[in-house]
Amino acid sequence: MIRAELKDGVRLLTLDRPEVLNAFNSAQFERLAAAMLEAQQDPATSVVVITGAGRAFSAGADLAEDRPPPEELEFGFQGCIDILIDFPKPLLLAVNGLGVGIGATLCGLADMVFMAESARLRAPFSALGLTAEASSTYTFPRLMGSQAAARFLLNAQWLDAEQCRASGLALEVFADEGFLQRVLAEAANLASLPLVSLLATKALLLADHRDAMKTANRSENEALLRLRGAPANVEAVTAFREKREPDFTAIQSKH
Amino acid sequence: MIRAELKDGVRLLTLDRPEVLNAFNSAQFERLAAAMLEAQQDPATSVVVITGAGRAFSAGADLAEDRPPPEELEFGFQGCIDILIDFPKPLLLAVNGLGVGIGATLCGLADMVFMAESARLRAPFSALGLTAEASSTYTFPRLMGSQAAARFLLNAQWLDAEQCRASGLALEVFADEGFLQRVLAEAANLASLPLVSLLATKALLLADHRDAMKTANRSENEALLRLRGAPANVEAVTAFREKREPDFTAIQSKH
Amino acid sequence: MIRAELKDGVRLLTLDRPEVLNAFNSAQFERLAAAMLEAQQDPATSVVVITGAGRAFSAGADLAEDRPPPEELEFGFQGCIDILIDFPKPLLLAVNGLGVGIGATLCGLADMVFMAESARLRAPFSALGLTAEASSTYTFPRLMGSQAAARFLLNAQWLDAEQCRASGLALEVFADEGFLQRVLAEAANLASLPLVSLLATKALLLADHRDAMKTANRSENEALLRLRGAPANVEAVTAFREKREPDFTAIQSKH
Repeated sequence: MIRAELKDGVRLLTLDRPEVLNAFNSAQFERLAAAMLEAQQDPATSVVVITGAGRAFSAGADLAEDRPPPEELEFGFQGCIDILIDFPKPLLLAVNGLGVGIGATLCGLADMVFMAESARLRAPFSALGLTAEASSTYTFPRLMGSQAAARFLLNAQWLDAEQCRASGLALEVFADEGFLQRVLAEAANLASLPLVSLLATKALLLADHRDAMKTANRSENEALLRLRGAPANVEAVTAFREKREPDFTAIQSKH
Repeated sequence: MIRAELKDGVRLLTLDRPEVLNAFNSAQFERLAAAMLEAQQDPATSVVVITGAGRAFSAGADLAEDRPPPEELEFGFQGCIDILIDFPKPLLLAVNGLGVGIGATLCGLADMVFMAESARLRAPFSALGLTAEASSTYTFPRLMGSQAAARFLLNAQWLDAEQCRASGLALEVFADEGFLQRVLAEAANLASLPLVSLLATKALLLADHRDAMKTANRSENEALLRLRGAPANVEAVTAFREKREPDFTAIQSKH
Repeated sequence: MIRAELKDGVRLLTLDRPEVLNAFNSAQFERLAAAMLEAQQDPATSVVVITGAGRAFSAGADLAEDRPPPEELEFGFQGCIDILIDFPKPLLLAVNGLGVGIGATLCGLADMVFMAESARLRAPFSALGLTAEASSTYTFPRLMGSQAAARFLLNAQWLDAEQCRASGLALEVFADEGFLQRVLAEAANLASLPLVSLLATKALLLADHRDAMKTANRSENEALLRLRGAPANVEAVTAFREKREPDFTAIQSKH
């Protein structure tokens, strides 16, 4: 459910569960972690591009999943994020369609993000009674400035591709027509350069940030552990199942 | 002289000394500190918006004030800044008109800054023989990039609302007509979301920065202590009273 | 080969080797270091502007140079960078034409960068089998955001003046006609303000960053020591001498 193709030093990873808009369940995080490790170790791979199959990039974590116990997972969510943070070769995202949750926060873990004109991103955490993840509370202020990051991570609203580019979350927007080819051309240009230089420069660029990203990810996970199953999260999930708007009024006054 | 109104979880604080363009004297800093603590403790308040009464946001610190001795103040300037830095709920600024000095540097202490089309900001520190305050030497480079922050904090020139938005000091500019309503609508949308999520996400976003902001504020205050009453500051204040342009030529050659 | 002129508190330093597009050899780094120290100590200098003679700003380090042994140099490359990082007065760049390598990375060491409309910048490190220098792996992400910095430092492509401005690498673009006069007017405005304020504010703005910049510069130099003379660098230099395109294919597969 992650397809890997290699051409001219560029490994294209396609999230391939289009029937659920490429949502992530625990198994998909395992697969992404394994695919990244394989790309890291493959001497023929200089650059990695991640995209989504079908019309979505990724609808985010599968909220309905019964999560397997941690001991049954090789990497887990945190392990997968750590592998992305430590990935030594250039990592590009080709955000072909909507990205929600981890489908948006992945942007902070890539070196460059390209978006199709019709793509859009949403960080729905507040609307679910949850909080941000995947180091986005560290990476997004660096990308967008602190005000735009605060708004995006707090208000659970959509940003279209042009808004993402203007705020710094994405580097460039290409037309939908020929989108992936444009990103692959960028990647192929990088892959034509000496890998020793790409590795050295990326290592220097991230030197001050990898530990801070991991620390942020751990702090976020602690907050999420506290918020999952708490009244606001229960109301959000219940309202979603009952196909009604959530009402947090009764919960608010308790703080 | 600070009005507080609560509606739908949004507490609107209005700096209300329009006869002096909402300038801050020591008493006003005390009131702002107290108003923020009240908002923090009030379970019915999810989001705070600060705006100014009349045509100005705030003309900044009252330079003509005979300052009371520190022991007569409950919070003081530094205490007020610390309370703003530690404020756990979303804090929005509605910059309705001109902001000078603290009326501009407050932007670095808010989560989101909205400006009316006709508003403009100025950091007059160099023209007064002083230096920047309220952690702006830390917050402004993060918001504006280091070059734009250096220019704004060094050259004592005005930036109009659109320049503030383009440089990242403000998140969005709204038309003067209906300006406050637009900001209150943003705030109400935030306040409709679970407060637990707003608190958790803001805490994560600021985790790495609160201590650094306080350190910057203290370093700025030490530099200000050195510069207040020094020759350049005396010349600036004297020229202001004598309604002439200051002339720093004689002072410059001593460095 | 560096001309110095002083007017109204502004010291203009002109890189003056137009016959080699103001390329830097070891002697030129010595001269720049000495000129900056002189500007620092001169009480009549409030602000420094660096520009280039002729049509280029600087073509970067002279790759063909037989470098003198370190003991024959007073400052060396690292010493010159340290002096630029520690320079206490406002430092402006007037990028009048093309800037390559150090002619581009200098932008991260200045407080404000102005570019002529026809100027453009390139970080050619990957194409040479090398990596970035002069603290640019620290300063460029702060100026441009991490994605634009990664692209610029990794892909060895040109950015024109407007792209530099839009990404934050330059503060403003002026028309070629009258370019230097516009930058000198900005500098003269700063120099008319109290130097004590300029010194205090610049010190505060850089307080958190000078050590990090020096650390980045040292890490970059270590990586460069490893990459110089390695297969990719040898192929790049050989191809340059043989006037052909380099071919890194054979080298890539060894990683």
